Amino acid sequence: MNFADQLVEAVRRKRNPVVVGIDPRPEELPGGFLDRFPGDRAGVAAALKAFGCDVLDVVAPLVPAVKFQSAFYEAYGPEGLAALHATVEHAKSRGAIVLFDGKRNDIGSTAEAYARAYLGKVPIGGAFEPPWHADAITVNPYLGTDGITPFVRVAAREQKGVFVLVRTSNASAREFQDLVADGKPLYRHVAEKLLTWGAGHAGESGYNLVGAVVGATYPQELAELREAMPGILFLVPGYGVQGGTAKDIAPAFDEHGLGAIVNNSRGITFAYERPHLAAQFPGNWQGAVEQAVRDMIQDLAANTSAGRLRD
Amino acid sequence: MNFADQLVEAVRRKRNPVVVGIDPRPEELPGGFLDRFPGDRAGVAAALKAFGCDVLDVVAPLVPAVKFQSAFYEAYGPEGLAALHATVEHAKSRGAIVLFDGKRNDIGSTAEAYARAYLGKVPIGGAFEPPWHADAITVNPYLGTDGITPFVRVAAREQKGVFVLVRTSNASAREFQDLVADGKPLYRHVAEKLLTWGAGHAGESGYNLVGAVVGATYPQELAELREAMPGILFLVPGYGVQGGTAKDIAPAFDEHGLGAIVNNSRGITFAYERPHLAAQFPGNWQGAVEQAVRDMIQDLAANTSAGRLRD
Repeated sequence: MNFADQLVEAVRRKRNPVVVGIDPRPEELPGGFLDRFPGDRAGVAAALKAFGCDVLDVVAPLVPAVKFQSAFYEAYGPEGLAALHATVEHAKSRGAIVLFDGKRNDIGSTAEAYARAYLGKVPIGGAFEPPWHADAITVNPYLGTDGITPFVRVAAREQKGVFVLVRTSNASAREFQDLVADGKPLYRHVAEKLLTWGAGHAGESGYNLVGAVVGATYPQELAELREAMPGILFLVPGYGVQGGTAKDIAPAFDEHGLGAIVNNSRGITFAYERPHLAAQFPGNWQGAVEQAVRDMIQDLAANTSAGRLRD
Repeated sequence: MNFADQLVEAVRRKRNPVVVGIDPRPEELPGGFLDRFPGDRAGVAAALKAFGCDVLDVVAPLVPAVKFQSAFYEAYGPEGLAALHATVEHAKSRGAIVLFDGKRNDIGSTAEAYARAYLGKVPIGGAFEPPWHADAITVNPYLGTDGITPFVRVAAREQKGVFVLVRTSNASAREFQDLVADGKPLYRHVAEKLLTWGAGHAGESGYNLVGAVVGATYPQELAELREAMPGILFLVPGYGVQGGTAKDIAPAFDEHGLGAIVNNSRGITFAYERPHLAAQFPGNWQGAVEQAVRDMIQDLAANTSAGRLRD
């Protein structure tokens, strides 16, 4: 089954387009959490794993997908990456679609190595085995087609997905992405190329296994890109803490509430730091996380066509 | 000591600007090498580590720096990354400057997490410890200043370096990097911003801890960028297998043979696959690797100002 179809199916089943981003920062773990683990690198890594799995136990029944930010695991060395591996396995066992947010980019056989690592299989002792079990990966387009097609080829073969950075959610996204060449900004050039990278990879849902990362913090560009890229799934960061609202994101969806998935990381996983949730769920950080997911689902349902998923 | 000064000093001491790229592909290991290890993921990872360390034993006495391509280690999961970690430690113990080629990119606290992971320290049990011990990292500029300054800040604090992709060596580099906006191509816009990212970070050598990746396969752009970016160290990929020659690279150097370091990965680490070296060093793959390094040093000395390093 084409990755886009798997994702659309999961969104329909869960009746919402929310992605919970898992970006574990040890300094923001719930009070006392770290103290349960040894004070060395392996101990911190074990804490990241335990926290991620605890979050997953709350959110996996509620949302179609989760997104792991690799940086926070890489920060704890090989032990951190073993924690990521174990947490990804836990997410898969709980039925979540797993997005690996690594923004990888390289060319030729190196790009293929990344693609096989996260989406595919590598040769081991005469057989082929999957090292990481992610369902999709984020990639950076600066290197052009050479840097993207190896990912698309592996994804197509393995029924996985690729999300290409088109328009990012940060303030300085404008510096290069808005430079105008041949009458249109760079991010529109990337968007046009993305359509060629996805050619032939649409699923039965009409959506493509090659998706786009388009930030919630630039609503006008989001609306414009939605029009320019029919059939392309948008992974939308920037909701919540970064300032994007449900109304800003509304143009990302089609009339059925499909076509976009919306990520929230800190706003959910560290929900217990938000005063109103801390007050509502004293000593129960998982309760705060669950409430934050339900609030976001409700917000998107009320302010975007994602509400149709409940019909 | 500023990273640029450390690198310049190492180039002067070794009297050449060669970087050996370590991109271990199990399918290209010397005949029989893999057979010494168990046929599972940990076994392949152990083989990657043994091979990398064996290469380092040959090349570390000869060249100033080595570059690890993360993709090939990530392809073997957490075990592969533990192999990378151990191989980096071995490189450090042999006195090599270690470049981590991960082309990472993200924003804000996520970029900072990557920077602390590879160049800096992370909090562990009330102290701060360095997870990876690299000396410099490659980063992708598509996200703009937000995605670069966290790396520069950590690098400056820790006396480490950052190499920003400006002009890559691959065929489709042109697609986006050559788009002309406001009268100049995107890669020149990136080059201009890079000068602002490096402001205040020059060392006593005159070179900056913020460097640029500029491919050997576009000699005209290389020469033009050299002129536009005085004081910026170039990390030059694309020599050898990718088609760049020493003559192509000559404009990257200043009159003292400084200002650029030149990477060669497959051409050195898999030198024993090249027919003339296989014939010259039968059953001695490390001999072939050493000869390939010496040949490259000689080629650059004969055809670029790097020959001055021998005066």
